[in-house]
Amino acid sequence: MTPALAVTKRGRPHVVIIGCGFGGLYAARALRSAPVTVTVIDRTNHHLFQPLLYQVATATLSPADIAQPIRFLLRKQPNTAVILDEVERVDPDRRVVHLTEAGPLSYDYLIVAAGARHSYFGNDGWEAAAPGLKTLDDALEIRRRFLIAFEKAEQCADAAERQAWLTFVVVGGGPTGVELTGIMPGIARLGMRGEFRNADPADIRVVLLEAGPRVLPAFSDRSSARAHADLEALGVDVKVNTMVTGIDASGVRVGEEFLAARTVFWGAGNAASPLARSLGVPLDKAGRVRVNADLSVPGHAGLLVVGDLAAVEQKNGELVPGVAPAAMQEGRWAARNVIRAVSGRQMRPFRYTNKGDLATIGRERAVAEFGNGRLKFGGRLAWMLWLFIHIMYLAGFRNRVIVLMEWAYAYVTYRRGARIIRSSEARPHASLAREAP
Amino acid sequence: MTPALAVTKRGRPHVVIIGCGFGGLYAARALRSAPVTVTVIDRTNHHLFQPLLYQVATATLSPADIAQPIRFLLRKQPNTAVILDEVERVDPDRRVVHLTEAGPLSYDYLIVAAGARHSYFGNDGWEAAAPGLKTLDDALEIRRRFLIAFEKAEQCADAAERQAWLTFVVVGGGPTGVELTGIMPGIARLGMRGEFRNADPADIRVVLLEAGPRVLPAFSDRSSARAHADLEALGVDVKVNTMVTGIDASGVRVGEEFLAARTVFWGAGNAASPLARSLGVPLDKAGRVRVNADLSVPGHAGLLVVGDLAAVEQKNGELVPGVAPAAMQEGRWAARNVIRAVSGRQMRPFRYTNKGDLATIGRERAVAEFGNGRLKFGGRLAWMLWLFIHIMYLAGFRNRVIVLMEWAYAYVTYRRGARIIRSSEARPHASLAREAP
Repeated sequence: MTPALAVTKRGRPHVVIIGCGFGGLYAARALRSAPVTVTVIDRTNHHLFQPLLYQVATATLSPADIAQPIRFLLRKQPNTAVILDEVERVDPDRRVVHLTEAGPLSYDYLIVAAGARHSYFGNDGWEAAAPGLKTLDDALEIRRRFLIAFEKAEQCADAAERQAWLTFVVVGGGPTGVELTGIMPGIARLGMRGEFRNADPADIRVVLLEAGPRVLPAFSDRSSARAHADLEALGVDVKVNTMVTGIDASGVRVGEEFLAARTVFWGAGNAASPLARSLGVPLDKAGRVRVNADLSVPGHAGLLVVGDLAAVEQKNGELVPGVAPAAMQEGRWAARNVIRAVSGRQMRPFRYTNKGDLATIGRERAVAEFGNGRLKFGGRLAWMLWLFIHIMYLAGFRNRVIVLMEWAYAYVTYRRGARIIRSSEARPHASLAREAP
Repeated sequence: MTPALAVTKRGRPHVVIIGCGFGGLYAARALRSAPVTVTVIDRTNHHLFQPLLYQVATATLSPADIAQPIRFLLRKQPNTAVILDEVERVDPDRRVVHLTEAGPLSYDYLIVAAGARHSYFGNDGWEAAAPGLKTLDDALEIRRRFLIAFEKAEQCADAAERQAWLTFVVVGGGPTGVELTGIMPGIARLGMRGEFRNADPADIRVVLLEAGPRVLPAFSDRSSARAHADLEALGVDVKVNTMVTGIDASGVRVGEEFLAARTVFWGAGNAASPLARSLGVPLDKAGRVRVNADLSVPGHAGLLVVGDLAAVEQKNGELVPGVAPAAMQEGRWAARNVIRAVSGRQMRPFRYTNKGDLATIGRERAVAEFGNGRLKFGGRLAWMLWLFIHIMYLAGFRNRVIVLMEWAYAYVTYRRGARIIRSSEARPHASLAREAP
């Protein structure tokens, strides 16, 4: 039942890991010296450093700068094999993972780290007009729409139509929305100087829509207010308590008001991977798997879930947040619990350590909170800390050096290095434009 | 009849340039201070440094490293506008270019620099199984197939099938074929060390098929022989005098013999852009426009053709070769002839200066010929000269620095920085695999 590719040594338990984001990668690494064989499955060949994805979406970095082949990262673990394939479903009773191409793969322990996609809160029709940002495919689609909007504006004889092409709306005031909107005005105003003859990129209008009362709701009131003010200083039109009621290719409807905008991005809701449903176990409202304190799934020994796919309750009753450090900690903890189980010991409860929160808001601005909010600061110091931490955690020496170079270039020149529209990318947009009323 | 975007100042002749490869870019730059308004049309937003495209195709460089936005390159020319659009056809009698989205655009002078695509010599069915390398889209498709082949091999239980996935055939022994095949063995043998558990990338087989008697036919016999020997030393199986008679998803047919290979690339024939046909002027066998000595088209004052789309006869009766330096020289010359015509002077005949030929053959190997073949050399010196010249001609400071960094990384570690298979790229291949018998 196990295809040729799995490293299966007799007597060694087989640990399968689904997904190689932060949760999956840290789980795999923690199993390096364990007496198990490991198979990592991902539908791409790379581990993606998601915190910098918005910089690919805005043409600052190239995809390869924030992605490393999973095989390369795990090459020094002879007990680990990597499969590029998609998981169709999991059968936890028979302990089998069903892969699209390789077929069934049996396991002794399964760590599911399949992550999240966007949630449009039941309005799935909005996705075509307002794509979200989770994968490299997403980032390249957002980059394409971002860059092409200026090309379309340049070709508009009509002033209102031109302004609609120069208007960018981001729905959702979390870190993704704040980072995307914070970076856009500078790119348009300074990074494209002198390049256009009919439209002026400096006429860009960037709107951030947040349904709740403040941006960055995971931060303190003070940091939220600071981020809000920073965004406005950058020229972003921030609207809180604003519920979107419609999105199409011509703009966004907010109650009675219609905002003419040809380019809309989605940074609002998360929904756990559809894979969770195939497990046949209890899920929460957002589709996440309700796990035990030790990250295992009730009633299924040997099945653990980590990262954005897991609903992990803390002692204070709150869920562990869906952030990269939490996924890393959970991945590592799940692996350790597997090692404990393999050697006949009891799995132990996971405890989340909040090392702090950081969000960047354009050039030289950021907010930081440490020690559960006891230490809060913003401005240039927070921004430099953000730069330092992101370079530190980025996998691979090459990527660190290249990203530092790209940042230095963008900092000094304001220009962006990855402004590419390929021929195959320029064409589909024609239909997008025609779709609009 | 002229859309809003064109820079049209009364009294100034309007020069339209189709295509912004080497020919179009050098023509546009040479018109910077001329008393004309210029409109550059390209179906992508970037000028592509084609000589390094094979390094994108083999995951060494990122697309953004060898591409620069055309607007950025021409931003300091206030008389020049850039349009991202596709030319449907040209009406040289009415002096109108018809664009897919922007509609008709009238001109006083037209410089056509639309370049070439591949020619399959009437076997257009081969294209799906053996893509060529002209654009970034092409390079990313070749990269996808190159990287996925190793993933497929890793998942093969059958040894013969595994070897078919590890066999790469390139058809055509010109510079593209020599560069592609020369770089592949090293990437597989050294750049993927330790990453696979079932397949061994070191079992790679790379085959170069050339219909004529020698590789690099544009070079001297001596340099051809040297390149041939260098390729064999790198482990490439070079077969000259070998005519391909069939290609499909399972391999290549050569006379009676069938070569099982899941991955085939095409570097053989060029065919001029189909746009040439719309001009309604005499073309040569390869679809190129037969131009006058001054690069204008017989019977159409104000219509000039440069680069790979032009058949330019030299004094010795031979055609100017389809290489980057020739396109640059022709583009610049066509612009100067337009300036002459605008000021009432006679256009002057173009004369090609062969500054030398260079081709690289993997790590530390290359062949060089200067002074019409009077000076020939190869080896590490030629390779270093190749590196230097390519960095020199690469547009943009940023790109030069990043490419140097990527090369240093690849040289020291043997690893490649851009080994990315996105989720959308991993899926279509399933159907490719199933297509095979």
